[in-house]
Amino acid sequence: MTAQTTLFSPRNLSLMMDLYELTMANGYFTAGAKDTRAVFDLFYRSNPDDGGFAIFAGLEQALDYVEHIHFDGDDIAYLQSLGLFTAEFLDYLATFRFTGDIYAVDEGTVVYPNEPLVTVVAPLIEAQIIETAMLSQINHQSLIATKANRIVRAAQGRMVSDMGARAAYIGGVEATATVLAGKMFGIPVTGTMAHSWIMSFASEYEAFKVYAQVYGSNSVFLVDTYNTLKSGLPNAIKAAHDILLPAGKKLKGIRIDSGDIAYLSKEARRMLDEAGLEDCSIVASNSLDEFNIRSIISQGGCVDIFGVGERLITSKSDSTFGGVYKLTALEKDGRWVPKIKVSDNVVKITNPGRKDLYRVYDSDGKSIAELIADHGEPVNGAVPELVCADRPWQTLDYLGCTFKKLQHQVVAGGQRISQPRPLHQLQDYVREQMIREVREEEQRLDNPDIHTLAMTSGYYNRKLALLKETEAGLGGE
Amino acid sequence: MTAQTTLFSPRNLSLMMDLYELTMANGYFTAGAKDTRAVFDLFYRSNPDDGGFAIFAGLEQALDYVEHIHFDGDDIAYLQSLGLFTAEFLDYLATFRFTGDIYAVDEGTVVYPNEPLVTVVAPLIEAQIIETAMLSQINHQSLIATKANRIVRAAQGRMVSDMGARAAYIGGVEATATVLAGKMFGIPVTGTMAHSWIMSFASEYEAFKVYAQVYGSNSVFLVDTYNTLKSGLPNAIKAAHDILLPAGKKLKGIRIDSGDIAYLSKEARRMLDEAGLEDCSIVASNSLDEFNIRSIISQGGCVDIFGVGERLITSKSDSTFGGVYKLTALEKDGRWVPKIKVSDNVVKITNPGRKDLYRVYDSDGKSIAELIADHGEPVNGAVPELVCADRPWQTLDYLGCTFKKLQHQVVAGGQRISQPRPLHQLQDYVREQMIREVREEEQRLDNPDIHTLAMTSGYYNRKLALLKETEAGLGGE
Repeated sequence: MTAQTTLFSPRNLSLMMDLYELTMANGYFTAGAKDTRAVFDLFYRSNPDDGGFAIFAGLEQALDYVEHIHFDGDDIAYLQSLGLFTAEFLDYLATFRFTGDIYAVDEGTVVYPNEPLVTVVAPLIEAQIIETAMLSQINHQSLIATKANRIVRAAQGRMVSDMGARAAYIGGVEATATVLAGKMFGIPVTGTMAHSWIMSFASEYEAFKVYAQVYGSNSVFLVDTYNTLKSGLPNAIKAAHDILLPAGKKLKGIRIDSGDIAYLSKEARRMLDEAGLEDCSIVASNSLDEFNIRSIISQGGCVDIFGVGERLITSKSDSTFGGVYKLTALEKDGRWVPKIKVSDNVVKITNPGRKDLYRVYDSDGKSIAELIADHGEPVNGAVPELVCADRPWQTLDYLGCTFKKLQHQVVAGGQRISQPRPLHQLQDYVREQMIREVREEEQRLDNPDIHTLAMTSGYYNRKLALLKETEAGLGGE
Repeated sequence: MTAQTTLFSPRNLSLMMDLYELTMANGYFTAGAKDTRAVFDLFYRSNPDDGGFAIFAGLEQALDYVEHIHFDGDDIAYLQSLGLFTAEFLDYLATFRFTGDIYAVDEGTVVYPNEPLVTVVAPLIEAQIIETAMLSQINHQSLIATKANRIVRAAQGRMVSDMGARAAYIGGVEATATVLAGKMFGIPVTGTMAHSWIMSFASEYEAFKVYAQVYGSNSVFLVDTYNTLKSGLPNAIKAAHDILLPAGKKLKGIRIDSGDIAYLSKEARRMLDEAGLEDCSIVASNSLDEFNIRSIISQGGCVDIFGVGERLITSKSDSTFGGVYKLTALEKDGRWVPKIKVSDNVVKITNPGRKDLYRVYDSDGKSIAELIADHGEPVNGAVPELVCADRPWQTLDYLGCTFKKLQHQVVAGGQRISQPRPLHQLQDYVREQMIREVREEEQRLDNPDIHTLAMTSGYYNRKLALLKETEAGLGGE
């Protein structure tokens, strides 16, 4: 095997892929099928935490992978050592580049199950080889951006800071504790002290005093090392009065990291106000997520900033996103032949073919449905043109509505044609959607309203016909 | 901000840390406290999934970080831009190296809550700066190794393959789908085909036929694209008879990725056996974890290999490990002064001081308790020397037992003195502990027996005295 790779080695992550991508690629290569053009859709099947929607993220890193993927001599030698691949295929990999087209929904867009978020149009072998990276980046970041968005909504305008990263920021979290994320992505960084700081001094007061002398108005004191109300708050107030106020400075905040946050924050607010420290913020940070933030607020807790940690970055209450990447069409004699995956499990049946994805807005600008049409098919809101995918007996009337195409081409012939957007624009974009487009009923944390997935009747009927044809062919060769 | 960092950039992960490590470090530096020698313990408070124990992993990457941490010009410039740090502190960081000592339990060791897994003895500022990396590597890998170990135990000797990585392998998973993990860590890689392979051919039979022609006896056919029993298995059997057997080859396996795995695997076994394919393995791979693997086995499912995915690598049923890193002692005038974190929440009270950690084995070689003693304190099993930490009214008698020290020094004066062990040795080590040392009652997936944490009465009484002293000082300065 190769030498031990350390956390500090230069890296080529091209092999961050499932082996079956390469066994299939070698198979396509050997069977002469590698250059057949194919369409793959990336979509997911249900919203994390049974929410009303998800926030799409991770495209930027997926495109970074697509643009840079290559197999160096070391990679080829390792693959050769597996004894699975032909010499011709390994030669092919040595000069491999992705040459296809990619169409995608913008990062930060509110998205719904079973709609194509990314569509890859490329030679079959290339579309297959990039599958793992597309899925892993988009699944992880969409999961975290969605969770962050839920937490930020639960905080009802109060600031949320995290220990996470890019996706959490897109989802609405305003600051991060992780210095590398600050450096790499320009996200504001926050953080002051741990219990070890307090414990390393002879007394809690001494620890606050020294911190105040060093950081002045940037001081946020952690007040629960010994006893929040009997010791932490009195010492914090004393340090503010003795050190900060005489120097013309203010105590920025106090942080409570254990105990009954709702109760302690109310008492702390009262004590701070009585001491004339009305400007001092209260930060809470003990295993928070959208559920206990909502509970703290509903109990009248006086928390200004929620510091959210592991329950965000692991999406603890629902830790998988479940995005999939499915073949939907293959080119034959210059035409797209749609492909469908049937299953006993109805939710696992795929939407076949090249298609266009629209979002439907009512006259108030609220997003009321998604619409799938054949690629290039013109759409309008008239009945009976539209069918509800889950309830095909229902007629849909979207007359007077606006139809916005959700996917844009981002890669053409293997080259990126979209510019990365600044991260703060993505955060603004998510926030704007919450305010202007996404209905309140879909924003509920529990039992939200289900967004309608519509199809043009033409697309729907062709899907049904393909399903019947596939079922009829079962058991044969 | 700095230029966009891509997945393929050379990397310096030194800044992968919480900001407060640096604000505290700057504070210690400015307050003249940076060189006070300190002891930090890394421990966790409860077993994932309410299990009986955890598997310790991630030390190797944590030590890699400690050995290589440095702040380059780019890092210093970014930190300067935050406006939080003194010029003297930034100069100090520019030549920063870790110079302390680290003692740790061996990777792969079965471990229990509230025992010190890693002890760092170093100048306060250095011990603080490495906190985030120690916690993030060890928390993530211990979580995944523990989950993998649960899943492997549930599979009762059947092979488990994963899409994960190093920690899953340590936990007992035998192979990985991730090519980079194979290349970096030498883990066996597995994988054959996705549904897209089947769908890209004119028929399922054709897809199997071509794969068999390319891969011969390495063929594992995915049989659930259209209908597992009506189409997938008949076509798999036909391809085996038409292509593989005439060429003197065998069908290695079939894979079922949806539907009722218990039922389908029994039917598949029957059909394969009737067709003379008794050697053909059955692989199952649909959202598996220890709970549904146990269910499949208890229903008599005929699965030879479990392919485990997202529920392992995210530890879906319990996605956080919760390890913490706490100050336990500070040097004063050449002596260690113990430090304790009190809390209204009893489980958050820490075990103070430098200490030795032992595992107690009965005469059958079974591990029956952990024992904490003062650093250097001699131990034997006699009553009343020992106290049960949770139930101090109980007497413990460990006469005739063996006491094994669990921590070893791995870093001395900032230099690694332990050699990385080959990954397969770590997997063997975990397996041996399951067979020889860990009692069956602790290996139960549900409601396992709780491992005893014992303390020498000397250590216990000193902890109590320190708690009383700290409580008595509350509210004062």
